[in-house]
Amino acid sequence: MQIDAHTQLCAVLGKPIRHSLSPAIHNAAFQAKNLNFVYTAFEVDNIEHAILGMRGLGIRGYSITIPHKVSAIAHVDELDPVAASIGSINTLVNNEGVLRGYNTDGIGALRAIESAGVKLSGAEVTLLGSGGGARAIACTLAVKSDLSKMNILGVVEDEMKALAAHVSKQSSARVNGAMLTEETLKKALDTTLLLIHCTPIGMHPRVDETVVPQKFLSSPLVVFDIVYNPKETRLLREAKEKKCRVISGVEMFIHQAVAQFELFTGQSAPEAVMRKVVLQNLKT
Amino acid sequence: MQIDAHTQLCAVLGKPIRHSLSPAIHNAAFQAKNLNFVYTAFEVDNIEHAILGMRGLGIRGYSITIPHKVSAIAHVDELDPVAASIGSINTLVNNEGVLRGYNTDGIGALRAIESAGVKLSGAEVTLLGSGGGARAIACTLAVKSDLSKMNILGVVEDEMKALAAHVSKQSSARVNGAMLTEETLKKALDTTLLLIHCTPIGMHPRVDETVVPQKFLSSPLVVFDIVYNPKETRLLREAKEKKCRVISGVEMFIHQAVAQFELFTGQSAPEAVMRKVVLQNLKT
Repeated sequence: MQIDAHTQLCAVLGKPIRHSLSPAIHNAAFQAKNLNFVYTAFEVDNIEHAILGMRGLGIRGYSITIPHKVSAIAHVDELDPVAASIGSINTLVNNEGVLRGYNTDGIGALRAIESAGVKLSGAEVTLLGSGGGARAIACTLAVKSDLSKMNILGVVEDEMKALAAHVSKQSSARVNGAMLTEETLKKALDTTLLLIHCTPIGMHPRVDETVVPQKFLSSPLVVFDIVYNPKETRLLREAKEKKCRVISGVEMFIHQAVAQFELFTGQSAPEAVMRKVVLQNLKT
Repeated sequence: MQIDAHTQLCAVLGKPIRHSLSPAIHNAAFQAKNLNFVYTAFEVDNIEHAILGMRGLGIRGYSITIPHKVSAIAHVDELDPVAASIGSINTLVNNEGVLRGYNTDGIGALRAIESAGVKLSGAEVTLLGSGGGARAIACTLAVKSDLSKMNILGVVEDEMKALAAHVSKQSSARVNGAMLTEETLKKALDTTLLLIHCTPIGMHPRVDETVVPQKFLSSPLVVFDIVYNPKETRLLREAKEKKCRVISGVEMFIHQAVAQFELFTGQSAPEAVMRKVVLQNLKT
């Protein structure tokens, strides 16, 4: 990379952050497009100061991750409507001093679903979980797709109910919020086109766990697991064994970065380059 | 450069800043030493926010240039004694959240002088000018060398007198402050070992100007011009013609960057690499 006095800075903020793949992904993408940008990582405690720093320094873009995705909202100038609905941002773009927040997590999920050839229009979808990932996807699908029905099966009752009520206001789809049990899951999957798993179950190091009994899985159900570490979770492996089409969390991870790159640079992203970096760096 | 989530950021702040060579110099030096650092440039209006950004983001180091060298002092935690005496900083280092300001301009001049083989101990020096450059050099020489006498010949009377009074308190050398005229200059040069030109006269685009009549120049006087644009000013060219030893502002520019690199990284700087980048980038 050739860095000079015109180079624009983007960075990921979070804590912890030193494990982040984002610098490798975005720098490879900037180079592939021959853009005079560079991307670093900052371990941040005080998000207010970090955002003042964006203003003071003219930093072009931030990726924002745990624990600042919600608290960052208080310090931005403008909010994309989908991010406002989700109530958190993972992206902040500095347009000549005006800071606009976005959330590309749900967009990343939506693009991963569309890239897999799944048609959401008129379909029924079941989300498992009601945390940040589920919320981003539910709110994005509510606005950006015209589902017939969304089941939200949660394990934290208040959070699940709040998310179901919120999504129901945003969408013309029928929204069914319920606690996740074998019974509610079985019933929902009877009519579901796409199952989206948004709990941390199955994530490294608890790779042998799953919340979906394999007996409930059968084609033509499409199974999407937003966990990308490991690349193939137990849920996806068992879904494949039952001939279900599967969508990996790796694709959501790539597509949320692709959407960020587009917001940072105003250009189309070199998706293949970004996918290659992700796959090279994710070990299993 | 391979940039990842561990890469430490340094940057130059100023306005204007897009002409700065500092990113090219420092990035080449980081690469030569195989250090996981990157260096960018920020056009900054609000130095307070820029310094809050250093705290909020954990940025490792700043080079600070016009117009923020004086105003930045109000926002640092600690001040190097030489910088405190000068009253301005050109370097800010973040040591685990404690921000310490330095001024390497005078150090850069001192190292350029020493590298040219000039022995300052017991010598008489004449500075022309009393602005920021003169002040940095005068205050640094006052503390770091044991001159017998320092003449400060200025064109702005109040500024010249204030600098002479200040330096005189810091140094055991005799300090003579006077207005710059042919008469005061001729008298000072009679006994001066080293003439240091610190006014902007002769700087691009006014490259045909000089404040020192050539008739006053003769060996063994050493002539140092802190102007580095052009690389050889009229003053230096005429001094060479009179067989004077000369020191270019380019050397001061290189050595102030060398000193910054050492403060940023805690390692010795690859001086030859840095010189090469400067010489390649300075056109004339």
